[in-house]
Amino acid sequence: MTKDSKSNLSEKEGVSQPETTSKSSANKIKLSRRKQAPTSTFIEKILAGDITFLSRAITLIESTNPKHQEKANEILNACIPYANKSIRIGITGVPGVGKSTFIEAFGKHLTGLGKKVAVLAVDPSSSINRGSILGDKTRMEQLVTDKNAFIRPSPSGTSLGGVAQKTKESILLCEAAGFDTIIVETVGVGQSETAVHAMVDFFLLLKLSGAGDELQGIKRGIIEMADSIVINKADGDNVKNAKIAKVEFNRALHLYPPKDNGWQPKVMVASALHNSGIDDIYKMISNYIQTTTESGYFQKRRNDQNKHWLFSTINDQLKNRFYNDPVIKDLLEREIKNLEAGKTTPFNAANNLLNSTNKS
Amino acid sequence: MTKDSKSNLSEKEGVSQPETTSKSSANKIKLSRRKQAPTSTFIEKILAGDITFLSRAITLIESTNPKHQEKANEILNACIPYANKSIRIGITGVPGVGKSTFIEAFGKHLTGLGKKVAVLAVDPSSSINRGSILGDKTRMEQLVTDKNAFIRPSPSGTSLGGVAQKTKESILLCEAAGFDTIIVETVGVGQSETAVHAMVDFFLLLKLSGAGDELQGIKRGIIEMADSIVINKADGDNVKNAKIAKVEFNRALHLYPPKDNGWQPKVMVASALHNSGIDDIYKMISNYIQTTTESGYFQKRRNDQNKHWLFSTINDQLKNRFYNDPVIKDLLEREIKNLEAGKTTPFNAANNLLNSTNKS
Repeated sequence: MTKDSKSNLSEKEGVSQPETTSKSSANKIKLSRRKQAPTSTFIEKILAGDITFLSRAITLIESTNPKHQEKANEILNACIPYANKSIRIGITGVPGVGKSTFIEAFGKHLTGLGKKVAVLAVDPSSSINRGSILGDKTRMEQLVTDKNAFIRPSPSGTSLGGVAQKTKESILLCEAAGFDTIIVETVGVGQSETAVHAMVDFFLLLKLSGAGDELQGIKRGIIEMADSIVINKADGDNVKNAKIAKVEFNRALHLYPPKDNGWQPKVMVASALHNSGIDDIYKMISNYIQTTTESGYFQKRRNDQNKHWLFSTINDQLKNRFYNDPVIKDLLEREIKNLEAGKTTPFNAANNLLNSTNKS
Repeated sequence: MTKDSKSNLSEKEGVSQPETTSKSSANKIKLSRRKQAPTSTFIEKILAGDITFLSRAITLIESTNPKHQEKANEILNACIPYANKSIRIGITGVPGVGKSTFIEAFGKHLTGLGKKVAVLAVDPSSSINRGSILGDKTRMEQLVTDKNAFIRPSPSGTSLGGVAQKTKESILLCEAAGFDTIIVETVGVGQSETAVHAMVDFFLLLKLSGAGDELQGIKRGIIEMADSIVINKADGDNVKNAKIAKVEFNRALHLYPPKDNGWQPKVMVASALHNSGIDDIYKMISNYIQTTTESGYFQKRRNDQNKHWLFSTINDQLKNRFYNDPVIKDLLEREIKNLEAGKTTPFNAANNLLNSTNKS
């Protein structure tokens, strides 16, 4: 013992602490991190239809880590030439309408015809824990074990734009992996139906038949978007109600001007539970796809959708840049107060705000 | 004569040309230009309800001359504290529905009640010659000679945004000049109904009754905007049809969810030609104004509208700046070609475009 060690300030020699992770565990983690396959392997595997790599690539798309995003973009760009060769079907309906049961029956019907079916979801309310729809794959027990089906829950995210972009990119990867039918499900929170409508070729609205008043409570704009309304759970005592609902929906649809492709939206009746009506629905969709492909509308719509996404991405970003500027944030608050006090016009206020960014 | 003047290239001395304008005319023009009243006179006269100066100020608002715009802004800013104290009513309907006759009958009814009525119009299709609606004031013979009425045709312009902004500013001037009821008419070209709906307190859709199928051909979204549907020309043999139409419109309106202020849009029947139903329509509107004023919705809606105009002006301008950049124009064209050829995604293309402005 030295003299110093006798001081009250001296420290006792400590006992060595146990490591928080075992060396073997740490090595395993390091190994698995190092093990992430190179981009070329991702691309090769996805184009060969490997679902594990497809799933991992979608995880990269959904990641907020810039390195992951970069890798995701490389994979995506390599896959683009092999994408776009599918039929994209959007399905919406309120909770309880039987979306999962319907998608399972519809998906099984398609795989039975030799199709490869990917089911994606857009749910901006879904939280980080992979949320409210499609989160529980057990809801589609049969489809989930079907080797020609791929089911993926909604990406999580706070903005619909972000969630929608990830889903749109995932569609392309699924197509590159050989999926020829893409189903995009949405619960219809906020504007999510509009987002899904803008990424699919055919938009299907699932409804229940009730005791009349079928059209009450349908969200504004949904009927205009629907290429078909399917009245689900048309079984047992409900068959009669479903038929009445069909008449009422048909009447309502006729109130709207015809779509720009000349298609008159069809009202169909189905029981996903008893697998009835499913084949007719697929025939109708095939008929739609054939007609619109022949008329050139199918490709035109896809081009229009791509342009829509291009412009909406740019416009959102322009606004983000502007409104997130701290100078603008302050000034905007003041100008809104002036507006509410009747001290300025919206146009004067706008000019003040726009000019203040020119100066900065 | 000099030597030079003999050259073939020499010019003969010309005869003096007569002046294109007589000196007295030129002086008169100079005088009238110099004579434009100072801004303070404009403000004073407008606040005193002088229609000539109101009209001239609106001409300044509509002018594209920067000096005029500056003067218009000064006038407008001085008038703002006296504006906003009116009821603003939007009226739309297809050509032939009898808008002019209706507005004349309605306007006369209001001036008869001691109101001061300004009638403005939004018609983005109207050309430089003061176009298609309200251009011909003889269509409202009685109202035009009424000293408590002010009728102004649509400002001309190529963009709806521009036309709408000018009309919105004109509303404020009319209010400052003491007009307590502002009627904004639109033919409903493009999105003009949406623009008018966003600047009025009450939106009225004029319709005709026909031989059934009343709802066919109504533009998408109009019914959602209407606070009332008035079936016009309910006279003579048409009375029965009008009543049938009323039932049908009422049924259709019930298909929509209630408005956020709880108001159930009313279907009314009128004959502007025979002056029947006009008083009931005004009572209904007054009732609406009273109810919404008491509930606070009236002011909330005006605040929301002002914010809407603030943000839409900014957002339009952000887009104008971006897409009018020559670098962006070139690149956009290329990226759209890539998109159509399936060589890129909308999101990649958008990022390329956005990054290219960061660099410049």
